[in-house]
Amino acid sequence: MSKTKQLQSIWFSEQKETVSIIDQRRLPHRLVVEEIDGLEQMCTAIREMHLRGAPLIGVAAAYGMYLACRRTEARGSAESLEEAAGLLLATRPTAVNLAWAVERQLKALQGIDEPRQRTTGALKIARDIEAEDIERCRLIGNHGAALFEEIHREKQDTVNILTHCNAGWLACVRHGTATAPIYEAHRRGVPVHVWVDETRPRNQGARLTAWELGQAGVAHTVIVDNAGGHLMQHGRVDLVIVGSDRTTRTGDVANKIGTYLKALAARDNGIPFYVALPSSTIDWQLRDGIAEIPIEERNPEEVALVAGALSDGETTAEVRIPPADSPAVNYAFDVTPSRLVTALITERGICNATEQGIAALFS
Amino acid sequence: MSKTKQLQSIWFSEQKETVSIIDQRRLPHRLVVEEIDGLEQMCTAIREMHLRGAPLIGVAAAYGMYLACRRTEARGSAESLEEAAGLLLATRPTAVNLAWAVERQLKALQGIDEPRQRTTGALKIARDIEAEDIERCRLIGNHGAALFEEIHREKQDTVNILTHCNAGWLACVRHGTATAPIYEAHRRGVPVHVWVDETRPRNQGARLTAWELGQAGVAHTVIVDNAGGHLMQHGRVDLVIVGSDRTTRTGDVANKIGTYLKALAARDNGIPFYVALPSSTIDWQLRDGIAEIPIEERNPEEVALVAGALSDGETTAEVRIPPADSPAVNYAFDVTPSRLVTALITERGICNATEQGIAALFS
Repeated sequence: MSKTKQLQSIWFSEQKETVSIIDQRRLPHRLVVEEIDGLEQMCTAIREMHLRGAPLIGVAAAYGMYLACRRTEARGSAESLEEAAGLLLATRPTAVNLAWAVERQLKALQGIDEPRQRTTGALKIARDIEAEDIERCRLIGNHGAALFEEIHREKQDTVNILTHCNAGWLACVRHGTATAPIYEAHRRGVPVHVWVDETRPRNQGARLTAWELGQAGVAHTVIVDNAGGHLMQHGRVDLVIVGSDRTTRTGDVANKIGTYLKALAARDNGIPFYVALPSSTIDWQLRDGIAEIPIEERNPEEVALVAGALSDGETTAEVRIPPADSPAVNYAFDVTPSRLVTALITERGICNATEQGIAALFS
Repeated sequence: MSKTKQLQSIWFSEQKETVSIIDQRRLPHRLVVEEIDGLEQMCTAIREMHLRGAPLIGVAAAYGMYLACRRTEARGSAESLEEAAGLLLATRPTAVNLAWAVERQLKALQGIDEPRQRTTGALKIARDIEAEDIERCRLIGNHGAALFEEIHREKQDTVNILTHCNAGWLACVRHGTATAPIYEAHRRGVPVHVWVDETRPRNQGARLTAWELGQAGVAHTVIVDNAGGHLMQHGRVDLVIVGSDRTTRTGDVANKIGTYLKALAARDNGIPFYVALPSSTIDWQLRDGIAEIPIEERNPEEVALVAGALSDGETTAEVRIPPADSPAVNYAFDVTPSRLVTALITERGICNATEQGIAALFS
């Protein structure tokens, strides 16, 4: 596979007026681009996780609203904005970015009656959200890289980072959230090595984060999700950094299932646990993450079936692990309480995972 | 597949003078029996995990010594007992039962010079170790089931148990260690439901524990290793019970990688965390599990490749998850410090995971 350093996870084509995405289900074994030209196709892509990652599904939903406007304009139909918004909101429940992006479109477009103007307006907002996400991630990278440099100055040796799931550029547009400081520190010459949790059941770590890091030439090692505690007990992890799908105003963090277990192990071993997030993942309505954040329950077949490459390296197949008659359950996220979070790394800087800390940055 | 309630994980055939085992790599999709008639074949079966589980590899190693004696007798060769012991001891480093069984054979056989007597002696000891393991597991089941009954009396509803890896009869000879109280409580009519951690990288939970529980008609649900913390946060786990591959005299427990993370989550949520173990897994020499128990590092390909059944339900295949050029690392066990263990369930009863607690039962 050729190097793809310049790729984004999503991009708009002026000529075709379509949105292209990387079909992330096929990575790392194949790099497949999907061209999306309708709302329904975008809803499927979000629901079936052709693309995923809280910031990215926000951007994708914004483009979904644009595609809906364009269709309405072309057909002269009365398909309502609210209907399109409803379809997008129903795709995935946990990440708040999706709702945030859809609301932003709705608010801006509801005052525009002329179909062409609406389409143009929706495109502009989608492109703004895309550009803002890139800039937020770049800033997160700068703030976080300073932390990594500090650890390196003290340690005078490779900084060992553990991350869970994929909070990389594939989860955003560019840079990533949790990976942004890693890429930036690497660019600044800080020696880094990343322990990549494979992240069952969908293996976003082993498939996506490992691929991203490999493409960028960052040293990394894939581990099973079970291994992080052992590595921490033996001094082989200097810090943990993860992304967030939704953050309460009090600093509780919903992220990929299993994040909470790593936060517990970090606390038990005195290792800092950072969460990197653009402010678009903050839900200002919520105070108690465990009680209030809706946790998506996905198809149990995602637990039972594992997809990967056969020995030729390209053909993919799915294999079933448990007995066919054993039930499974598949919660996609868990909530890490703020007491286990050392600090939040945002586009505005680093703050405590507390209501005061967050409010001081985003007043 | 037919029901296999009467099977053991290992058995001796008087007629053929061979040892049969279930090839556990093929479960749950096929039930394959392997007949073992030499020391080298037994070493391969242990090393390559045709069989696994601390108690079982102790029994298997004892039979390995018998097979070595029988060969020596047949050939009139001077193959030494020490050589056979060395080969067996080199197969797997973490479980102490293996060393314990081999030492017991060595000690008993070193005084016997006559080859036929030696073979007979070795067989008797192997059969004794087998019978003792069955009896120890039965007693663990009785002691543990009383605990489960107590929880059920208080809760007046199904007892939800979380277990990691396979500490079932497939890991022993019959009954299992962690599963023995589950089977016994089920037999006594206590409604139980088991959350089965899939247990990456080798999926002993999803493949073996789920299969065992299904065969026995015990309600269960397969979950990814990442999910336990979330379930505990939401009150859906009443207790955790696991086995042990080596236990220090102070109560630290080496068990399948990831056990430590579940113990942390249990502690954080006020849920009891029990370890079921026959005394043969206690290493009386050790006091500090994290510093002193050797942790086996296995082939990283076990992390990268996942085996399972293709859609016909029988043909098995292996698929690769991460990029081919991403390194992986594969630690097989971790150590749960005694401070996180609520109690040990042994054949002699239940005790605190402390030096005093253990000494009081095994003085």
